[in-house]
Amino acid sequence: MMSLLVLSRLITSVCRVPCHGGLCNFARALSASSVTNKSTVVGAQESIAAIVGSQNVSASEAVREQHSHDESYHIPVSSPDLVVWPRSTEEVSQVVQICRDHHTPIVPFGTGTGLEGGVLGQSGSVCINLTKMDEVLDLHTEDFDVTVQPGVTRLALNHHLKDHGMWFPIDPGADASLGGMAATGASGTNAVQYGTMKENVINLEVVLPDGSILHTAGEGSRPRKNSAGYNLTSLFVGSEGTLGIITKATLRIYGMPEMMMSAVCSFETVNAAVESVTQVLQCGIPIARIEFLDEKAVDATNKYSNLNNKVAPTLFLEFHGSEASIKSQIETVGDIVAMNGGSNFEWADKMEDRNKLWKARHDIWYASLAVRPGCKGLSTDVCVPISQMPRVILETIDDLQRMGFMYTIVGHVGDGNFHCLLMMDREGDEIKKAKEFTHILGRRAISAGGTCTGEHGIGLGKKQLLIEEVGDVGINIMRQIKHTIDPLNIMNPGKVL
Amino acid sequence: MMSLLVLSRLITSVCRVPCHGGLCNFARALSASSVTNKSTVVGAQESIAAIVGSQNVSASEAVREQHSHDESYHIPVSSPDLVVWPRSTEEVSQVVQICRDHHTPIVPFGTGTGLEGGVLGQSGSVCINLTKMDEVLDLHTEDFDVTVQPGVTRLALNHHLKDHGMWFPIDPGADASLGGMAATGASGTNAVQYGTMKENVINLEVVLPDGSILHTAGEGSRPRKNSAGYNLTSLFVGSEGTLGIITKATLRIYGMPEMMMSAVCSFETVNAAVESVTQVLQCGIPIARIEFLDEKAVDATNKYSNLNNKVAPTLFLEFHGSEASIKSQIETVGDIVAMNGGSNFEWADKMEDRNKLWKARHDIWYASLAVRPGCKGLSTDVCVPISQMPRVILETIDDLQRMGFMYTIVGHVGDGNFHCLLMMDREGDEIKKAKEFTHILGRRAISAGGTCTGEHGIGLGKKQLLIEEVGDVGINIMRQIKHTIDPLNIMNPGKVL
Repeated sequence: MMSLLVLSRLITSVCRVPCHGGLCNFARALSASSVTNKSTVVGAQESIAAIVGSQNVSASEAVREQHSHDESYHIPVSSPDLVVWPRSTEEVSQVVQICRDHHTPIVPFGTGTGLEGGVLGQSGSVCINLTKMDEVLDLHTEDFDVTVQPGVTRLALNHHLKDHGMWFPIDPGADASLGGMAATGASGTNAVQYGTMKENVINLEVVLPDGSILHTAGEGSRPRKNSAGYNLTSLFVGSEGTLGIITKATLRIYGMPEMMMSAVCSFETVNAAVESVTQVLQCGIPIARIEFLDEKAVDATNKYSNLNNKVAPTLFLEFHGSEASIKSQIETVGDIVAMNGGSNFEWADKMEDRNKLWKARHDIWYASLAVRPGCKGLSTDVCVPISQMPRVILETIDDLQRMGFMYTIVGHVGDGNFHCLLMMDREGDEIKKAKEFTHILGRRAISAGGTCTGEHGIGLGKKQLLIEEVGDVGINIMRQIKHTIDPLNIMNPGKVL
Repeated sequence: MMSLLVLSRLITSVCRVPCHGGLCNFARALSASSVTNKSTVVGAQESIAAIVGSQNVSASEAVREQHSHDESYHIPVSSPDLVVWPRSTEEVSQVVQICRDHHTPIVPFGTGTGLEGGVLGQSGSVCINLTKMDEVLDLHTEDFDVTVQPGVTRLALNHHLKDHGMWFPIDPGADASLGGMAATGASGTNAVQYGTMKENVINLEVVLPDGSILHTAGEGSRPRKNSAGYNLTSLFVGSEGTLGIITKATLRIYGMPEMMMSAVCSFETVNAAVESVTQVLQCGIPIARIEFLDEKAVDATNKYSNLNNKVAPTLFLEFHGSEASIKSQIETVGDIVAMNGGSNFEWADKMEDRNKLWKARHDIWYASLAVRPGCKGLSTDVCVPISQMPRVILETIDDLQRMGFMYTIVGHVGDGNFHCLLMMDREGDEIKKAKEFTHILGRRAISAGGTCTGEHGIGLGKKQLLIEEVGDVGINIMRQIKHTIDPLNIMNPGKVL
C-alpha cells in the first residue's frame, strides 16, 4: 500500500477544436486551467481518511485496478491513486474540497457498468465510489416520487418499491446505480413508454467542484413540473460526472400496471421487423417495450439463456395497462405483425415467463461475449429517427459484414436506438477497426438526423463525434458551461469534452 | 416617429443577493457588466432597417406601447425604443449583432400572452417580434416530429397537423406562439399525459447574444432520445429569452387518439374533488386532462361561455385512447368519483361538445376578468406534490377570503398545479396586496415541496421567490450560466435573475 498519495501528475486534456467568434476565450481558459495547475498534495490520504474513516479509503493495487475501468472496450491507461467510499453528502463535500485545494482530479464511480469509459481511472486522481451511499431516503407513494442516495441500484429500488405496488421503470439492462444512471442519462427497454432518466429525475443534490451543495430544483422540491429559472436538473442529468457528483436523486415512480403481457415474434427479414415497429408506433399504441434482436442475437440468447426462439430477426414486445386496454393493443399489434409476415407470436403473461424473457434480453451483452470466449466487447449506441432506422440498420449490417466483425444487433427500436455488439480479439487490430466502425456508424446516424449516442453517453470514445454532432457553437457552449462550473477542471476531466 | 433611436440608457439590474463561497465573483461580474456599458448607438434604426426592410421596423408610439406589456398585471415602466419583425434566422442574427455592438438590450416578443411580465419593455431596448417567422418547416409524420419557426402558434400548428391525423397536445390555453411556449416552459391542460414543453422539444435553433447560431442538439438532429453531452435543449427551454432568441423548434407530435371523451362532475367540497384526483392518479389511470374549478370559476365560466354547470367544486376530465381502454378508464374513474360523493357526471364524446367544454376552460382567464369589468388580472401558478394539494388549496382559500380578494381558482390538478385568478382594481393598493399574496402562496408551495411556478415562468414577478426556491448555490449557478452565455447582459435583461 502506498504510504503517501502521489498526486503530482497533471490533467492533460487540452481543447483541440478550433474555436470561433466570442466563444474562443472560454475554450482557451478551460485549456489553460487544465494544464497549468500542479498538485502538491502531501498527506491527502490522511486528510481524506480523517473524514471518511480509514476503512473507507484504499490505495491498494487491487482496489485501484478495479476502479480503473468499466465494462467497455476502453483500455485503462492508469488507475486512480486513491479510492474513497464516503457515506454522506457532507463527506463527499469535504473530500471534494480537499481535492479542489490540491487541484486533484476526481472520478465518481458507481457500479462500473458503463459502456463508454466514463469512469476510467487516471493517475493522480481520487476515485469516489458512491456505493456505500445506498439508502432509499424518502418514499412518497401518493406523490409518485422517491428520493435515493446515488448508490442505490435500480433492482434494489424496485425491490423496495414492490411492497408498495410501485416501480421505477427505467431499465438499462445492467443493475446500475441510480446516481450513475442519472449521470449518464440512461434509459433502456422501457423508454418508449416511460421516457429516459431525463424525463424521470425531478431533483438532484450535487456536490459541485468547489464542495458546495446544489439542489438543482431547490432543496426538498419535488413538484411534477416546474418553470422556475434555468433547468439545472436536466443540465446535470447526462453530464457524466464532469460538473459535479450526484449525492441524491428524486425520481418519478409509477404504480404497477394492472397487467403486463410480453410477446415474442419473428420475421423473415430485418426490414419486416423494423417496419412493423414503425407501424405500431404510428397507430399510437402505447406499447411499453418493443425490442429488436437480429438472428445472431437470438442465437446467442438461445444458447446463453437456454431459450428456444426461432433464429430469425425478432421482436420482443411488452404491454402494460388494464386487461381491456392490453387486449385491444394486442389485437392491433397482431394485425400489423401478420401484415409484415411475422410469425411465431408467443405470449407470456405469467411473471415467471416474462422475467425469463427480459432477463435473456438484458443478458444479451454477456450472451454476445460468450459467443467468442475471452473477447473484448464494444457496444455502439446510435439513435435515429424511426423512419431512418431500416436503412441505417441495413447499411450498418453491410459494413459489419464487409469489415468482418463478429457481432449481434439489438435495439430499443421504439426509440430508434440500436446497438451493434462487437466481439473483438483482445490482441491485434480489431479494436482499432471497431473504433473506425463506431465513427462510420456515428456519422451515418448524425447525417440521418440522429445522434451518436442514445443512452450510453460520450465518455471517452465519442468526443470527436460529439463535436461533429453539436457543431462548433454547441461544443463551445458546453465548454463554457464546464469551465464556469468547474474552472479547475478537476471533475472527471477528459471525459465528454 | 423618432428620427434616431435613443439608446443611451443603461441596463440597471444589479445583483442584490448575498453570494457565498467561490461563486461570488461571477455574480459580481454579471452585476458589473450590466451597469458599466454605455450604449452609443447612432443610426441603429437605419442599420436594422437595412437588414429587415423599413416596413419591418417601427418606432411609432402606438407600436412601442403595444410591445411594452403582456397579459399580466405588471405595469410597463417604459416601452422599447424600436420594434423589429425579422423574417429569417439570418436576419435575427444580424439584428442581434448590431445590438451586441451597441450593448443594446433585446426583448424577444411572441404573441404577448405571457402572465409574468417576461416580455415587458424597457427604454433603450430593441423588441424583436417573431410573429412574421410563422412557417411550419419540416413535418415528419412517420417520426412524430415537426420543425417550426417560432411565430407559429399552437392552434396554427394543430390546424396544419389535422389533415395528417397528428396533433401537438401542449395547450396553455392562450393561442401562444411555439417559440414563446418553449421559452416559457409552458404546459397546460394536457400535461398530465403528454408532459410539458420540456418533454416535447427535441431541438432548438437559438440565436445567441453574440449573433452566432446554436442548434441545441446539433443541426437537423431529431432523435427521440439523446445522451450526447450537456442537455442544451432543456437549458434553453424555460430560459425566458434571457440566453438567446429561439428561431426554430423541433417538436414531438402525436397521432390523434382513436377516441377522446370528456366529462364534467361536481362535488360537495373542494377536498372531495381534489382527493378524487389523487386517487385517480394513484390507480395509474392514463388520464389526459383532469382540471379543477372552484365554484366561483364554474360560475364565471357559466356566465361567460353560456354553460349550465352546477355551481360547485368541479372536475373537467378527458380520456384519450382506444374505445376499449377509455371504457375501462371511465369505469374506474366513475367508481372513484362516486366514492367521493361526486355527482352530475356528464359525458361529452362529440367533438363539438368537447370543444365547447375546453374552450370554456381556456377562457377562464377572460371569464374571470369579466366578473369585474375593467379590472386587472393576476394569476398565481404554484405547483405542489399532489398529496399537499388539498391542504395548500384550502389554506389558500382562507387567505384569499381573509384578504378580501375577488378570485377564481382553477388547476391542472393532475400535476399539482393550480392558479388563483385575482380580479384587482387598477387603482388603489389591491395590486400591492396581490403581490403580497403571491409571495405568501409561493412560500407556502415551496415549503410544501413545490415550486412558485409550474408553467408561467419567473419573468419579473417571482425573482425573489426563485432565489428562495433554488437557494444561494442554485441562483449563483444560474447567474454564472447567464453571465457565461450573455456576458454583456443584453438578452432580456432584468428578467428571471
